[in-house]
Amino acid sequence: MNKYFAEMFGTFWLVLGGCGSAVLAAAFPDVGIGLLGVSLAFGLTVLTMAYTIGPISGCHLNPAVSIGLWAGGRFSANQLLPYIAAQLLGGILAGGTLYLIASGKAGFDVTAGFASNGYGAHSPGGYSLQAAFITEVVMTMMFLLVILGSTDKRAPAGMAPLAIGLCLTLIHLISIPVTNTSVNPARSTAVALFVGDWATAQLWLFWAAPIAGAILGALVYRVIGSEESTPTTQAA
Amino acid sequence: MNKYFAEMFGTFWLVLGGCGSAVLAAAFPDVGIGLLGVSLAFGLTVLTMAYTIGPISGCHLNPAVSIGLWAGGRFSANQLLPYIAAQLLGGILAGGTLYLIASGKAGFDVTAGFASNGYGAHSPGGYSLQAAFITEVVMTMMFLLVILGSTDKRAPAGMAPLAIGLCLTLIHLISIPVTNTSVNPARSTAVALFVGDWATAQLWLFWAAPIAGAILGALVYRVIGSEESTPTTQAA
Amino acid sequence: MNKYFAEMFGTFWLVLGGCGSAVLAAAFPDVGIGLLGVSLAFGLTVLTMAYTIGPISGCHLNPAVSIGLWAGGRFSANQLLPYIAAQLLGGILAGGTLYLIASGKAGFDVTAGFASNGYGAHSPGGYSLQAAFITEVVMTMMFLLVILGSTDKRAPAGMAPLAIGLCLTLIHLISIPVTNTSVNPARSTAVALFVGDWATAQLWLFWAAPIAGAILGALVYRVIGSEESTPTTQAA
Amino acid sequence: MNKYFAEMFGTFWLVLGGCGSAVLAAAFPDVGIGLLGVSLAFGLTVLTMAYTIGPISGCHLNPAVSIGLWAGGRFSANQLLPYIAAQLLGGILAGGTLYLIASGKAGFDVTAGFASNGYGAHSPGGYSLQAAFITEVVMTMMFLLVILGSTDKRAPAGMAPLAIGLCLTLIHLISIPVTNTSVNPARSTAVALFVGDWATAQLWLFWAAPIAGAILGALVYRVIGSEESTPTTQAA
Repeated sequence: MNKYFAEMFGTFWLVLGGCGSAVLAAAFPDVGIGLLGVSLAFGLTVLTMAYTIGPISGCHLNPAVSIGLWAGGRFSANQLLPYIAAQLLGGILAGGTLYLIASGKAGFDVTAGFASNGYGAHSPGGYSLQAAFITEVVMTMMFLLVILGSTDKRAPAGMAPLAIGLCLTLIHLISIPVTNTSVNPARSTAVALFVGDWATAQLWLFWAAPIAGAILGALVYRVIGSEESTPTTQAA
Repeated sequence: MNKYFAEMFGTFWLVLGGCGSAVLAAAFPDVGIGLLGVSLAFGLTVLTMAYTIGPISGCHLNPAVSIGLWAGGRFSANQLLPYIAAQLLGGILAGGTLYLIASGKAGFDVTAGFASNGYGAHSPGGYSLQAAFITEVVMTMMFLLVILGSTDKRAPAGMAPLAIGLCLTLIHLISIPVTNTSVNPARSTAVALFVGDWATAQLWLFWAAPIAGAILGALVYRVIGSEESTPTTQAA
Repeated sequence: MNKYFAEMFGTFWLVLGGCGSAVLAAAFPDVGIGLLGVSLAFGLTVLTMAYTIGPISGCHLNPAVSIGLWAGGRFSANQLLPYIAAQLLGGILAGGTLYLIASGKAGFDVTAGFASNGYGAHSPGGYSLQAAFITEVVMTMMFLLVILGSTDKRAPAGMAPLAIGLCLTLIHLISIPVTNTSVNPARSTAVALFVGDWATAQLWLFWAAPIAGAILGALVYRVIGSEESTPTTQAA
Repeated sequence: MNKYFAEMFGTFWLVLGGCGSAVLAAAFPDVGIGLLGVSLAFGLTVLTMAYTIGPISGCHLNPAVSIGLWAGGRFSANQLLPYIAAQLLGGILAGGTLYLIASGKAGFDVTAGFASNGYGAHSPGGYSLQAAFITEVVMTMMFLLVILGSTDKRAPAGMAPLAIGLCLTLIHLISIPVTNTSVNPARSTAVALFVGDWATAQLWLFWAAPIAGAILGALVYRVIGSEESTPTTQAA
């Protein structure tokens, strides 16, 4: 049971930290943290949690990661549903907590976006559906590659949390203008539910593309990582 | 005795580095470091000190951390008072040093805030007392979770200072706009004493909420971290 | 074969992440990541990939690095051509992917630069050919010094990916204004091909100077790193 | 001999990277890296070099560090002069290289500062001589504390370069507005010589205060680090 609690609290932290920094601090007048600060925040939620709950649950915090690890032979199918449920629950709890905090400022308007992911008219930079889909697939594919490689038994011990966390930072540095960056259906769902309307209508893409990308990444790693030894079952 | 000196110098560094970067460099014209730079500075004070005095005192630098470690069974009750006294002393010494430096510029006005924590009219973004309280409780809870998990004997050796320091950076990336971020009663007290007035009047929240959050984090970790082995007594 | 795939995907990530963050996010209105964010992105592509494919291909991702490692006695001459081919292929694939994504926004104009390297009229800050050449030589020389030293068997195990990745960040922090920073002929070629015109006309410098610098760095390390033990054949 | 070459190239990198990022990139229009980027650059020069030449020379790169390590019983007196000479030589070489590069842009004016340190009228934020002196003493004192503690044999192996490099970043995040941050007489001298005038006239402070602070830090660490075991002779 405690690994489900770990995934719940971990995804709570990912959404509260990542989306929280975006909603509360990104555009703070004059000294706001900008997209660079938000990118760092998302990555640090994973880095900190991977050192904290890595040995307990593997610290997936993301349905696409759980599915990709299953596709890569590192995670058992019968754990997929409880992991994803715990991730969604933790994410939505974070969405609620963030709503409570953000509402403590006069003039807060959840329909302004609440860090939701979007494409077309709801892409931060006005990028098309096609560009958004490609971006989410490729970013999640590379994310899984880094997760599978850095937790391979050939990689230096103890450094995977750093590599994986900073990979999520990198992904945000590239792609916030395109989709506000998901690569994580739980993160997308957790805030979209509070916005409703276009945010829930566009949610399908932020399930479909990250999951497709994660499976693709697992397949690529089966080729790249195959030769010298069989990958360990050490989780991400 | 030298562990008390270590806590004193460590908290001196936390307040001088974190509050110092905020007072001196955050809003420097055109090239100021902003809230992102201040967040990094707070985190780096803990990261650098944890590698320096971690083996000596455990590098708490924070009464809420000491209390949370006690609640988590990692720290003995009879050390609480001398640790907290050393932390307050070091913090206040840093407040004085920063006052001396900042006064070396014409037009310095300590009542402009001096990096004090606040809520309502004294929240940087105008957030309510309730939002401030929730924020400080949740941030400190997650901070303790990361401290307890990353120093657990199952976690990779030698990486806890990185995880804990960058967790403090993350906490600031999220919450400076709400309360100017405390999660540390010594840090709040160290600068509030120089401002007086509203800063000391609001100080109660920055003792109550971080301590409540720290105890909550310790309780959560008793559940999440329970199964496979008993946590070590290795300090943060 | 899988080490060539590794180099291909790795260089894909370097160009997509580095040039992608520059094209998509650097100058995003109000909250753009700026040159600091782009510098971080370039470094993190190498950091994340070095933890992922380091044990497979050595993670060069750069013809100048492969040549410098050969000059330093760490890489065999008969692997140079397939490595460089894989790096170019991966880089060009990333250029194409980035073109596809960037085209998804109305008004995208590849001739605006597409993160190409340049000197003189095409240096971001208007720096001369001579300044550009010196900069690329010196930056690549120091890059190779860090690669050779941090992967030497005397260096701490497992930390080279961090040192090398952050060295690339540092190089960008210094030199984007001069040449838009290459130190990597594959990265330069990968985007210049999509711009054509001045970008391909100036491409010679971003092959000649990085390769000269890499060989120089290898020679310097033969002196600095010589005394106490012979360097290992452990790749970068 | 190769340890002197190592110190020379290392200090070359510190000055070229730190002062270079300040001169070339800090105030680049719209997307400049600001004081945050410069702080990161200074720290990364030390982080990258410490992983590169740490096992060769100890990677001091700074006369105040060499003197502080001697005061802390970690470095022999008869190595002080050749180390300091190598550091000065490398620093001045970097100053010359930076001058050459910066001159490649029309309108470059070395008398605008060239990243020199200063106080009073030449402090970036207009801070007094007294504030500058206190700042440089305290910052160097804390720098030595981190160097001595993180390289103590009780500290986690292999992490000292990270802690020390990021400590230099932190020091810059706090104190660039006060003195443009020295804590390193070689760095100050290396650029002041090209500016002359006020920069050389104020140079005394950036020798006196860092050296005083370094000795103070060594004395403090003799108390804090004394109890459990004698410090190793492992260099910084």
